[in-house]
Amino acid sequence: MSDAASPPPRGPLAGVRILDLTRVLAGPYCTMLLWELGAEVLKIEAPGLGDDMRTFPPFQGGESVFFATLNRGKRSLALDLTREADRAVFDDLVTGADVLVENFRPGTMEKLGYANERLLALNPGLIYARISGFGQTGPMRDLPAYDLIVQALSGMMSINGPEGGAGVRMGISIGDMAAGMFASTAISAALVERKANPAAPGRVIDIAMLDSQFVLLEQALVRYLAAGDVPKPAGSRHPMITPFDVFNAKDGPIAIACGNDRLFGLLAAALGRPSWTTDARFATMFGRFATEKELKAEIETALAGDTAAAWLARLGAAGVPCAPIHTVADIAEDPQIAARGMVVTIEDDELGVLKVPGSVFKISGYPDTPTRPPAPNLDEARGDLTPTGGGWITRKR
Amino acid sequence: MSDAASPPPRGPLAGVRILDLTRVLAGPYCTMLLWELGAEVLKIEAPGLGDDMRTFPPFQGGESVFFATLNRGKRSLALDLTREADRAVFDDLVTGADVLVENFRPGTMEKLGYANERLLALNPGLIYARISGFGQTGPMRDLPAYDLIVQALSGMMSINGPEGGAGVRMGISIGDMAAGMFASTAISAALVERKANPAAPGRVIDIAMLDSQFVLLEQALVRYLAAGDVPKPAGSRHPMITPFDVFNAKDGPIAIACGNDRLFGLLAAALGRPSWTTDARFATMFGRFATEKELKAEIETALAGDTAAAWLARLGAAGVPCAPIHTVADIAEDPQIAARGMVVTIEDDELGVLKVPGSVFKISGYPDTPTRPPAPNLDEARGDLTPTGGGWITRKR
Repeated sequence: MSDAASPPPRGPLAGVRILDLTRVLAGPYCTMLLWELGAEVLKIEAPGLGDDMRTFPPFQGGESVFFATLNRGKRSLALDLTREADRAVFDDLVTGADVLVENFRPGTMEKLGYANERLLALNPGLIYARISGFGQTGPMRDLPAYDLIVQALSGMMSINGPEGGAGVRMGISIGDMAAGMFASTAISAALVERKANPAAPGRVIDIAMLDSQFVLLEQALVRYLAAGDVPKPAGSRHPMITPFDVFNAKDGPIAIACGNDRLFGLLAAALGRPSWTTDARFATMFGRFATEKELKAEIETALAGDTAAAWLARLGAAGVPCAPIHTVADIAEDPQIAARGMVVTIEDDELGVLKVPGSVFKISGYPDTPTRPPAPNLDEARGDLTPTGGGWITRKR
Repeated sequence: MSDAASPPPRGPLAGVRILDLTRVLAGPYCTMLLWELGAEVLKIEAPGLGDDMRTFPPFQGGESVFFATLNRGKRSLALDLTREADRAVFDDLVTGADVLVENFRPGTMEKLGYANERLLALNPGLIYARISGFGQTGPMRDLPAYDLIVQALSGMMSINGPEGGAGVRMGISIGDMAAGMFASTAISAALVERKANPAAPGRVIDIAMLDSQFVLLEQALVRYLAAGDVPKPAGSRHPMITPFDVFNAKDGPIAIACGNDRLFGLLAAALGRPSWTTDARFATMFGRFATEKELKAEIETALAGDTAAAWLARLGAAGVPCAPIHTVADIAEDPQIAARGMVVTIEDDELGVLKVPGSVFKISGYPDTPTRPPAPNLDEARGDLTPTGGGWITRKR
């Protein structure tokens, strides 16, 4: 945990030492979340080029802005784990760490001579999290995984996209990020046990991107497992609630979601169609679900009489849940996002000023600061390395 | 923490007591994750009908299978928080809990007389997590939120769907589930602090669905904030990597992802087009990205010579990351999913046998059991309530 020289706690994981062998996205996303919760993260990179993400566009001041976003606040040390001198440093860091995280393909750590047993021998209380495409077990464990491959295999693509069309990849790398999110939860939970009982054994955590996508299939999976339905892309419609979709007004689309009869009644009144609430086709959720296309056509007939902006104002005032379809620019400039501190700045000599997403974790008693420290240059922590014996780095900034 | 009568620990949160006021999806998803990590979850429901999710189809043996999935293993107690006698029971449970979670609209708990200060007066060490659509602060805090509304407002829909088309809602309720996932991480992290320092103050955690979607925008957001780009739906393509897309073979589509020049070389050789690696258009990632449509047409010309299954076998053997586009049925029956224990069963008198998704958390030293206890009937824990003074429930099963 933290010593007298430590900076003030940023969050509830203050003083937790994370030794981070991860690269690209799933792993760095995990350790970014843990950093935002207050942990120290020491990123171990290959000498030379370091994390591949350093080369991913776009760039600002010669630095990858996506690398800068994912690695803000972390320290960096370059080690070649095939070299004896560097292995001694790494062993020492393992001894001093609370958590080790890696997202190599399964077998890589073993080939380097760092099987689970070896790591737990170095540090019997270590929490060792392994993030991989398919997990450390099973017939597919050795196969290469990219976000697209996992989204395709998991069934996720088969339920995403416009109704009647082929499924498409989700527009974000949810295959990587969900695995990173679940790993951050499991690591935090294992740290609860560690703090409650310092004599608890070390833990090896095995998080798979495929497992993570599978559990996120939600209703689609539940419906298959219980009823044998094989869901297909349904556009913006909810599989069980009507109306819950995107509808066209005179000049563009709006989203409307009525989760119960009361909200549907408000919608019917606001659209000037109060009789819908006593219409046998639409009066109940079951009826609306069965006549979904008919209801959609009638809603769009009503909406055609005015602009999206006018309808949003009218429906919103009536208490109907509705929304414009924002672009990324719209939301990035939105007053709610500003009020929540969700855009923060990184400032350093190379990047200049860079805006990045802030923290989703708002926790009382900890500052939600408007700035973040920059991501590290490769090997910048070299001079701060404590030489031997449960070693770690001392912070210079 | 657990007493002598407790069952064996299911995970690192064994003995942690979660008092759960949540309904429907975001909150119950959060507490399901915490249950899978070993915590005890006592679900407080409104007398009469309880959680709305109990009424959501499909049903098996008269029970909602989605409710059964999300609430497995939890206990249920029906309390009317406007009644004095029930409030006394609730106050007592707050005193005995480690964590309280709610996902009402902001202001609801305050209207019930349970402002943050009141809850922390009852239990000064309480970890109190609040999940809402837009957060407890900001101009939009009081607006109603559904998954669709948050996906529309957050920009998430604007980057999801086929290239050239309008954005569509993601095929899963990621607006709800991501908030639940981030809340489970924040709660676990706050518990780390609590276990490390029993005198640490209570914490109020404020997780918003909109914030959660915003931080998941990933590259789309980074590109806007750094370069002013406003991303649009890109189909299955990766925004920065080529080839990384779905391609048509003779009888159907396959996914191919080549994240570097080496993998592209393997693909070129396996397709019988070795000259691509020295072709100025395709030799570098930058070149491939600039000529993406041309390269896609050439890849599909090559793939047209054989079936998807034949190409998957050939490309897979060559080490090219590739995959079929699985349906939900395909993945639910997949040997890797079976080997990972990702489908488990719930068995009880009403449901009979129900298959549900298992746990994404594989942690050494804890059993990854093939069964789960059922979700509770409304108020089933009533008889096990400990009457007074930091009360909780004693477990009967």
